[in-house]
Amino acid sequence: MAELEKRELIDKVAELGKTGFDLYNRDFLLTWQKSREDLTAVMHVAELLQAIQQKKKPFRLFDYGLAISIFRDQSTRTRFSFASAINLLGLGLAELDETKSQIAHGETVRETANMISFLTEVIGIRDDIFLGYGHSYMQEVADAVEDGYRAGILAQRPAIINLQSDLDHPTQTISDLLKLKDYFGSLDNLAGKKIAMSWAYSPSYGKPLSVPQGVINLMSRFGMEVVLAYPEGYELLPDIVESAGKSATDAGGSFRITHSMQDAFENADIVYPKSWAPMSVMKERTKLLKLQDQNGLRELEKSCLAANTEHMDWECNEDMMKLTREGKALYEHCLPADISGVSCERGEVAASVFERYRYHTYHQAGFKPFVIAAMILLNRIENPAVKLEKLISQG
Amino acid sequence: MAELEKRELIDKVAELGKTGFDLYNRDFLLTWQKSREDLTAVMHVAELLQAIQQKKKPFRLFDYGLAISIFRDQSTRTRFSFASAINLLGLGLAELDETKSQIAHGETVRETANMISFLTEVIGIRDDIFLGYGHSYMQEVADAVEDGYRAGILAQRPAIINLQSDLDHPTQTISDLLKLKDYFGSLDNLAGKKIAMSWAYSPSYGKPLSVPQGVINLMSRFGMEVVLAYPEGYELLPDIVESAGKSATDAGGSFRITHSMQDAFENADIVYPKSWAPMSVMKERTKLLKLQDQNGLRELEKSCLAANTEHMDWECNEDMMKLTREGKALYEHCLPADISGVSCERGEVAASVFERYRYHTYHQAGFKPFVIAAMILLNRIENPAVKLEKLISQG
Amino acid sequence: MAELEKRELIDKVAELGKTGFDLYNRDFLLTWQKSREDLTAVMHVAELLQAIQQKKKPFRLFDYGLAISIFRDQSTRTRFSFASAINLLGLGLAELDETKSQIAHGETVRETANMISFLTEVIGIRDDIFLGYGHSYMQEVADAVEDGYRAGILAQRPAIINLQSDLDHPTQTISDLLKLKDYFGSLDNLAGKKIAMSWAYSPSYGKPLSVPQGVINLMSRFGMEVVLAYPEGYELLPDIVESAGKSATDAGGSFRITHSMQDAFENADIVYPKSWAPMSVMKERTKLLKLQDQNGLRELEKSCLAANTEHMDWECNEDMMKLTREGKALYEHCLPADISGVSCERGEVAASVFERYRYHTYHQAGFKPFVIAAMILLNRIENPAVKLEKLISQG
Repeated sequence: MAELEKRELIDKVAELGKTGFDLYNRDFLLTWQKSREDLTAVMHVAELLQAIQQKKKPFRLFDYGLAISIFRDQSTRTRFSFASAINLLGLGLAELDETKSQIAHGETVRETANMISFLTEVIGIRDDIFLGYGHSYMQEVADAVEDGYRAGILAQRPAIINLQSDLDHPTQTISDLLKLKDYFGSLDNLAGKKIAMSWAYSPSYGKPLSVPQGVINLMSRFGMEVVLAYPEGYELLPDIVESAGKSATDAGGSFRITHSMQDAFENADIVYPKSWAPMSVMKERTKLLKLQDQNGLRELEKSCLAANTEHMDWECNEDMMKLTREGKALYEHCLPADISGVSCERGEVAASVFERYRYHTYHQAGFKPFVIAAMILLNRIENPAVKLEKLISQG
Repeated sequence: MAELEKRELIDKVAELGKTGFDLYNRDFLLTWQKSREDLTAVMHVAELLQAIQQKKKPFRLFDYGLAISIFRDQSTRTRFSFASAINLLGLGLAELDETKSQIAHGETVRETANMISFLTEVIGIRDDIFLGYGHSYMQEVADAVEDGYRAGILAQRPAIINLQSDLDHPTQTISDLLKLKDYFGSLDNLAGKKIAMSWAYSPSYGKPLSVPQGVINLMSRFGMEVVLAYPEGYELLPDIVESAGKSATDAGGSFRITHSMQDAFENADIVYPKSWAPMSVMKERTKLLKLQDQNGLRELEKSCLAANTEHMDWECNEDMMKLTREGKALYEHCLPADISGVSCERGEVAASVFERYRYHTYHQAGFKPFVIAAMILLNRIENPAVKLEKLISQG
Repeated sequence: MAELEKRELIDKVAELGKTGFDLYNRDFLLTWQKSREDLTAVMHVAELLQAIQQKKKPFRLFDYGLAISIFRDQSTRTRFSFASAINLLGLGLAELDETKSQIAHGETVRETANMISFLTEVIGIRDDIFLGYGHSYMQEVADAVEDGYRAGILAQRPAIINLQSDLDHPTQTISDLLKLKDYFGSLDNLAGKKIAMSWAYSPSYGKPLSVPQGVINLMSRFGMEVVLAYPEGYELLPDIVESAGKSATDAGGSFRITHSMQDAFENADIVYPKSWAPMSVMKERTKLLKLQDQNGLRELEKSCLAANTEHMDWECNEDMMKLTREGKALYEHCLPADISGVSCERGEVAASVFERYRYHTYHQAGFKPFVIAAMILLNRIENPAVKLEKLISQG
């Protein structure tokens, strides 16, 4: 490795050593359970790992050890981000396919969580379908392995990483934030920037609340002017919305709710137009799914889609974009977006707008593998600055 | 690595060098095909690898090479144990999903076994559904790769490891034995200990015979007083039962059959209450499965479940446990157990009994990844003591 | 590593350094897009990697990085060959299971291809079902990652490797050619050898054209006398057939079409009897598949199978073999073959013929993992001779 490049990386590691984060042996489930130092450390290490990978530097943290993923919902992006992250660290991937095992809620979670964890360093979980269940499931798995570790069953306590729950999607929102940091030059530059987290029309149904809930909670931590916009009836979980307001106050920013997309976009520096299902629908849906009430589910979908169509004007199109700061707000989306005339007749975003920001959305997505890797690394290594300096020096 | 810890590990390796085992290039299909030295060596290396992993020592036996798993039945525990074991050794996992290929009995086994083995070090197989077929299938795969190796097609002859057949479940029973060794202090201490391998009631159907057959055959090798208990009609395979009797005689222990759970539990040091389907049912079931006779299968299940209900008193409950030595016999189970009032209304074991021994069962399960890793290591390495000392010294 | 063996390997590497190939950062989609030097370099490195593996030499090209496989058709051989190849190189495998994601033709290919590629070194694709689509899909993926790389989204441009398209099956045909090189002693010895690439009867339907198209195009590059035989109506794609003729002329060999298997086998040095569906049927089938016209597909299958039965005499049996040079032509097949009386009542080859050449076909298949590994290595490494010498010297 060229000495200069090595020097740069080591300087970046040294900065990490100075921050007061507390992530060793801590699960990463919700950004609002983490200090600003924790969030900054994750971003710092993510950038460092990305630099190592982009420069094709040798890197291998683990000799052996499993990383288990549990996907209770379809996924491409996060699945491959997780696979990439653990590959970079030197772990082996083992997916727990629940159709091939007998894991279930209750007694069995405790047992299964331990049975798969004898050589496991990390368990990544996506469980975002059932409102009121995903986060609880992650905690249940965490409690089970904690118990197994304390009882001497497990030689290590695997890290639990939230790959999207019903409440939050931290690997996504931290990637979104890293994009903003990169785009605006620094985290400090984000203070006072207006971000419109807005509902947008989609012909699909049942999209989780985790992204908007995660975005308003994370961005409010960094002094931004956060505006949450949605048509009446599309509420998010009240206590999580409240938490965003509190964070904004603490960080010297602001948070407010509006029922006008125009209002939200007005002079916005960043817009994040994305569909979600109303909390009430998600709760009803969870009930019907548990009852396996197929008729009820069909009726709910029908009425929900019909309700959506009353808000087809909630589209991020050129007229909307003109309202933003100098007409040039940064467009963000967790992808895949419903693009009008491309992936659907009418959707969340006009094709011309999406096309202009396409690479920005891809660039944002490119942070995710490194955010996941950073979360794992900071959980597993007690003195990450020391360890990283050693790895880079040897490389 | 701290010098003291390194010394301890190297001393343990040195002990291995002294034992007269013969496992290099030998498949591991049935414990009764192995010498007591072989079994002891597997346990010895399993404990060593577990110590290396628990102390988080660096370890990597292979630079590259595939480990293939073939699961012809659902599995969580063994699937992850195998994945963990091969990850520890540095091999890459490739599952042969028979629904995605065209493997079948007959001509194709020979071809497929070779086609997947060009860089393969080990093939782990679970095939426990068809009585009379699982073990044969493993032998067929073994013969195929042996033939390919001799013909110069394969650069190495992959090890075949039984991950549960219709006859035996060696990775499970050796884990059970390691638990006993740990619990009672040494293998020598097991001589004269009474173990009750008992049928127990379960509301499910068609459980394989491999665990009880494996337990009576393995425990009888170490001088234990083995009692096999089941209601009349729930016979195991006669020649395998006979083999257990012979082993008991050879090892200075005893083996007998009883049709009373109470009799078996009386003064037992260890109880292993577990359901299985009668041999005659398993044979009939295999016939019907081959014929794809769905009606016949439904009828068989119905009559078999009805027969089971006549023996609902075969439950490992507190009253039964009181019969054991000082009421404190060690409870063993390969998991998952059918727990009364938890995973079913009435099952193999009372909740209070299971709860008291829960961690013991988890602890036992924790040996399995290392037992599998030890079987592979001893198969692949001609001089394992030399190799292991080198690996530990460098670590 | 013994010095002598090391010397041999390094000498082989040195030879590679002298050839004028151009494979760095080049996808491998069709052999006819590659120079003879390119093809020779792939074979050279494949042989080298095979020697390293057979001698159990340490080897690890990558510290980390993903290899993604996309199988749009069933596969055992190629699936495990790809898994073996990337394991040898040190990459991690991630299969893109399209049923678990939402990849589709059009806009989404561009996005998904980038989303899965942030740490990806290679994407292997099998897409051979739809005539007119498989190769295009591979190009679409290649264009997408090229675009992402140029836009700075991806830190590296993944190699795209054709694991069988509608047009060609290069990893198979180069393995076939390596078998011929080995069997006849050298590539030079192949000049003037007669190879009969012949249609053969099979009771199955819809087999792709990629193997015969690939074989006639590749073998004609090396001065062989290539005869393509099929019953009238079983045409291959005209421009690809034309290309084979041109290659034969350029290389000083010959190419002709016959409608008699006997004519093709007469004095042949090599025979490659294999079934395929007529181009016209494949085109019709693609149309019906796109329309999801199940009735149409059933009708087509019926009429196609009926048409096949008129040519049941196109079987590679002992009488046919007697026509070949001294009755001893080498039999080749990409496997699995339809063997008369074994895998079907009447098929492509008589059991006695297949049995005589069984190990030869297995031996040929054994080249494939190394061909794939060579394609990847030559794509990723700018100065492969330098890199390989370093790896071998250190080993």
